[in-house]
Amino acid sequence: MRSLFYVDDGVPDVGGLAVVDGDEGHHAATVCRTRAGEHLDLSDGAGVVAHCIVEDVAKGRLTARVQDRRVVEPPVPTVTVVQALPKSDRSELAIELATEAGADAFVAWQSARCVARWDGAAKTEKGLRRWSAVARSAARQSRRPYIPAVDGVAVLRDLIESTRSAPPGSVLVLHESATEPLAGAVPSGTEALTLVVGPEGGITDDELAALTDAGAHTVRLGPTVLRTSTAAAVALGALGVLTRRWS
Amino acid sequence: MRSLFYVDDGVPDVGGLAVVDGDEGHHAATVCRTRAGEHLDLSDGAGVVAHCIVEDVAKGRLTARVQDRRVVEPPVPTVTVVQALPKSDRSELAIELATEAGADAFVAWQSARCVARWDGAAKTEKGLRRWSAVARSAARQSRRPYIPAVDGVAVLRDLIESTRSAPPGSVLVLHESATEPLAGAVPSGTEALTLVVGPEGGITDDELAALTDAGAHTVRLGPTVLRTSTAAAVALGALGVLTRRWS
Repeated sequence: MRSLFYVDDGVPDVGGLAVVDGDEGHHAATVCRTRAGEHLDLSDGAGVVAHCIVEDVAKGRLTARVQDRRVVEPPVPTVTVVQALPKSDRSELAIELATEAGADAFVAWQSARCVARWDGAAKTEKGLRRWSAVARSAARQSRRPYIPAVDGVAVLRDLIESTRSAPPGSVLVLHESATEPLAGAVPSGTEALTLVVGPEGGITDDELAALTDAGAHTVRLGPTVLRTSTAAAVALGALGVLTRRWS
Repeated sequence: MRSLFYVDDGVPDVGGLAVVDGDEGHHAATVCRTRAGEHLDLSDGAGVVAHCIVEDVAKGRLTARVQDRRVVEPPVPTVTVVQALPKSDRSELAIELATEAGADAFVAWQSARCVARWDGAAKTEKGLRRWSAVARSAARQSRRPYIPAVDGVAVLRDLIESTRSAPPGSVLVLHESATEPLAGAVPSGTEALTLVVGPEGGITDDELAALTDAGAHTVRLGPTVLRTSTAAAVALGALGVLTRRWS
């Protein structure tokens, strides 16, 4: 299977020459040791994938001729993961695993029991930048034509608002105390689902009540208790077969 | 939710006094700082779970009175994960994630393209011991009444043999080139499934042909390419809803 790299300036038409440089060029040329003559896929990270042949590799820069170009339709329904900030290195793991499993977008949730705090603009910006980088790298590794968006940081008030304006049943909160299994809770025909994952210490009763009042559905993911960094990825596996995503 | 710890000598009847010592006692008493009067669950790791109240905590040793005792039925079908040896720290991650997601047993597969090698009896024994410890710790974290068994190491010949003697369709090989989605490949009424996960470099054509010849089913897990350390956990999410496991 061909490697995939992202081009930020769009994928040229068939016959055109694509340039991969910057961090992505460094990765392709130096880390992956791509050579002239190799076949690879280039993607704009927004659905366009092109089969290319490498023409030239210089230090941290690669040019490749487009042989073939197609547009991959986005999955339906899309799944946005609202991820409570996990502790230290589990934070990156959560984004990596969920990206591999097909998450379409992330929202960072500063929930009541999060040990990690993104306090202040600088810390928040740094955290979001790191999540974006991890999502991009995991998407490349998984050869995804879409790089998941990292849509900012939310507090409970933001989640309540977005839940209120979402279609009925489309916001699913994973919770170990829920009695309804995920399998029974996915509305058919939904275009966009939101999956809310709590922190290590769990979602508080107040948070759960507020989200439920706003229209969210509390569901259980199997009989085991999953870590905050694992839950979204395993739930995406379940959603893959419960929806049209993996058909 | 109550913490769960394992007792190696079996769970006493209601009214009896259970003792947690050794590594598990150290974990319960020192790492988790359990105190007298606390409520917790003790399990034998083989289906018995007891609600207990802690009577005494000494250094690395804890005694607790059994209040209530129940037997949890094992999941049906069981899922054995045949995991090709991942590289370095991804090895433990694979076992951890799949245990959280509900794997019932593991077999370590020394496949052709594994970068990691468990060469010789000492290295193999050390590897299996480490996998067992990780499975136990992840099962505790997930409050599972069953600790997944680590069933030794296999080479291709072993897998061919076990596939031949398994019920038709019950051995599923995850492969990115497969055209059949996992959703369509799970036989109904099976008591035991086996999930085969290849290494970073992939399963070779020869390995795939040999396993298919022996009766294994090659299936695809969604449109993305998953790391060897992530694949089993995400597949277990899908199997949770495709079988009776998570109903």
